[in-house]
Amino acid sequence: MSDVHGYIDQNLPRFRAELFEFLRIPSVSARREYQPEIRRAADWLAGKLRDLGLETSVEETPGHPIVLAEWRGAAKSAPTVLIYGHYDVQPAEPLELWTTPPFEPTVRDGRIYARGSVDDKGQLYLHVKALEAHLRSNHKLPVNVILLAEGEEEVGSEHLMPFVRERVSRLKADAVVISDTTMVAPDVPTIGASLRGLAYFELEVFGPSHDLHSGTYGGGVLNPATALSRIVGSFHDDDWRITIKGFYDDVDPAPDFRARIKELPFDDKKFLGETGSPKLVGERGQSTPERLWLRPTVEVNGMLSGYTGEGSKTVLPAKAMAKVSCRLVPNQDPARIQKVFREHVQRVTPEGVRVDIKVLHGGRPWRARLQGPLYDAAARALERAFGRPPVYAGEGGSIPIVPEFEETLGAPVLLMGFGLPGENAHAPDEWMSVECFEKGTHAAAAVLAELAG
Amino acid sequence: MSDVHGYIDQNLPRFRAELFEFLRIPSVSARREYQPEIRRAADWLAGKLRDLGLETSVEETPGHPIVLAEWRGAAKSAPTVLIYGHYDVQPAEPLELWTTPPFEPTVRDGRIYARGSVDDKGQLYLHVKALEAHLRSNHKLPVNVILLAEGEEEVGSEHLMPFVRERVSRLKADAVVISDTTMVAPDVPTIGASLRGLAYFELEVFGPSHDLHSGTYGGGVLNPATALSRIVGSFHDDDWRITIKGFYDDVDPAPDFRARIKELPFDDKKFLGETGSPKLVGERGQSTPERLWLRPTVEVNGMLSGYTGEGSKTVLPAKAMAKVSCRLVPNQDPARIQKVFREHVQRVTPEGVRVDIKVLHGGRPWRARLQGPLYDAAARALERAFGRPPVYAGEGGSIPIVPEFEETLGAPVLLMGFGLPGENAHAPDEWMSVECFEKGTHAAAAVLAELAG
Repeated sequence: MSDVHGYIDQNLPRFRAELFEFLRIPSVSARREYQPEIRRAADWLAGKLRDLGLETSVEETPGHPIVLAEWRGAAKSAPTVLIYGHYDVQPAEPLELWTTPPFEPTVRDGRIYARGSVDDKGQLYLHVKALEAHLRSNHKLPVNVILLAEGEEEVGSEHLMPFVRERVSRLKADAVVISDTTMVAPDVPTIGASLRGLAYFELEVFGPSHDLHSGTYGGGVLNPATALSRIVGSFHDDDWRITIKGFYDDVDPAPDFRARIKELPFDDKKFLGETGSPKLVGERGQSTPERLWLRPTVEVNGMLSGYTGEGSKTVLPAKAMAKVSCRLVPNQDPARIQKVFREHVQRVTPEGVRVDIKVLHGGRPWRARLQGPLYDAAARALERAFGRPPVYAGEGGSIPIVPEFEETLGAPVLLMGFGLPGENAHAPDEWMSVECFEKGTHAAAAVLAELAG
Repeated sequence: MSDVHGYIDQNLPRFRAELFEFLRIPSVSARREYQPEIRRAADWLAGKLRDLGLETSVEETPGHPIVLAEWRGAAKSAPTVLIYGHYDVQPAEPLELWTTPPFEPTVRDGRIYARGSVDDKGQLYLHVKALEAHLRSNHKLPVNVILLAEGEEEVGSEHLMPFVRERVSRLKADAVVISDTTMVAPDVPTIGASLRGLAYFELEVFGPSHDLHSGTYGGGVLNPATALSRIVGSFHDDDWRITIKGFYDDVDPAPDFRARIKELPFDDKKFLGETGSPKLVGERGQSTPERLWLRPTVEVNGMLSGYTGEGSKTVLPAKAMAKVSCRLVPNQDPARIQKVFREHVQRVTPEGVRVDIKVLHGGRPWRARLQGPLYDAAARALERAFGRPPVYAGEGGSIPIVPEFEETLGAPVLLMGFGLPGENAHAPDEWMSVECFEKGTHAAAAVLAELAG
């Protein structure tokens, strides 16, 4: 095994250079115009896996392709590990807020700045390099490996599960390993204990058939931006509890996890510093990590109406749009949340406008069992790479695929993330720590060896 | 006088061709990049007035220039008439909603489609052509004339009143005539009896210092778009009465004008048709024309936050912006409304965000006295042009300069407008009726003769 880690240390500069090639491909899944780049990213990744000797294919789906690579030469008693990641990235806008261009990776202060650096290309590619380290050092892997990388994670993973379900026997694994989450603090290796689910909506409120003069018509008809504001303003009460009827019905109070959270070194002041907000504000009576990991949210992701250019234009807009998404916690069900959300919006929409609610995507929340050989192996591997045992923390974000993997493949899922607080995933100046990329590669190599027993 | 009207009838095609030249100049006052076009429009107009023999200058201001033209050769007993209009136009966006490009005037179904056709280039230029008709037919005008055309009406006329105040003795007039309003129905000549004032604000709500991942941070900090929605949603109660404390304090109930409005042929169904809204909705207990002319409003003119492109982006936005404007009625004072608006916004802004309130512009409301020689002359001139006497209607829009003219020059103001319902001023597909342009030219020529006595 020491060869493997020696190999990693010797080849880190090249690993990073290869990652930069990967990051230069603007594989934005949300935008049609980037479709060729999505394809290019899939082909690039498949090429790297093929070069290592994995049986690799770029599989078509009705959406973006899935990269599937397999290596099945391990000892008969060895388990099979499925490594999952995604090669698509969030849109990079607003571009003017990036210090350096999003698709020209740049190292500053020990951080790799680029769209997709931490979410998820860097965290996916370190697994590819861990496989390389084993294969080049020992000409084999300690376990059978299936690597599955999708191109639709940032838009809801619509085609991944049908793909998996059609290939259950081929993809059967004893453990699923995913690196797409964040450590609670630098040098504190972290295993993800929970994920929030998602229900994402686009609301459009229609008033007049065209923009009107706000003097000539103002007072005569209802302004759709006013109506939308009232709808969005109705989602919370003054204690920032969600007012949607039935929204909290299935929320698991999770006393054990709540107790575990209380023991974590969560630093409110540092968290506030990361956000740059005037103050931490949220649901009354819940601590910050409780609000992030144990409680659901309704957030506005975007809003647009009327004239938004320089100066004043006295227009009564024809329509108003808001993108609104709910983060869900166990045991909330996205389908039920979609239903109660719709009912709420229809109930509060005032007369004089028409509202259209589109469901953009959804995903289920998840909580880990945190025990068994996979978790034991991960704890040892992380301690080896970071010099201290891991902590178990929640994750506010969503990986809708996680609960589905667990159910469909019948295998436990390990979230072994190498992001850091303040990494700006989904925002301008996204970064991944160089050190985390390197230690992550060691940990990814070690976990395979540990799983071989 | 028959010569004058014959001259008009003979030259209408050329008048319209000249107007088209004027409309092709995109003199958008709100946008810096159009400054050269504003200048070009002023020079073009000044050229036309100079060609008629008026003493004409393009006067500099700290903003856009003012075109000033004078003719003082009338009989000693003749009054002096100041004709006011504006050569600037509203921004044309959203461009994709125009049937034909906004600055390529096109006639369809008897309407001239172009940005500025009715607001106000067409209504201003018909006065220029009325002057031409007198001067070419009789080598003189029946009254002394001052023509004043500004380039900042659509952005608040900031520099016009200082300009007028510095030249009070030179601009001294017995009557002010303005064509920048709308007739209540086709073939119903209309004198404007009231205007609403304006107080225009831009609100910016700041939360995090940069866009955040809505999963990782959602629930931890307050979403500025949520905060903005609550602020905007707080402006009205469920009866669509404005909730801002002190907002209605100075509103004149105006029982006489209210009685006059009840007699007007205001057609709710037709008005609804113009708007294309699902239903007419506004302050409970007030009829549509009452809401438009007697009651103030708070309207959202624009709103922007976060990600507004295609698909979903799970971002917690750093800020949210709304453009909000109040239409005011006598005797509301824009300065006092600014104060109570600010107080309200500050009172309802939740903890966890910072709000910034910018006043973009303001203007006072106005109500006409509707009697005296100016109104008698106008009634006769309109009856001559349209074949029936005028009605007196309110106007929901604002011309902040009107009350200021009346005070500064000590002269009554006549609003003799030739727009029509549904003209789309400030919106895509703005139009002016060809017939109204023509009859308006006749009326404008006639009112000068009538004023000469």
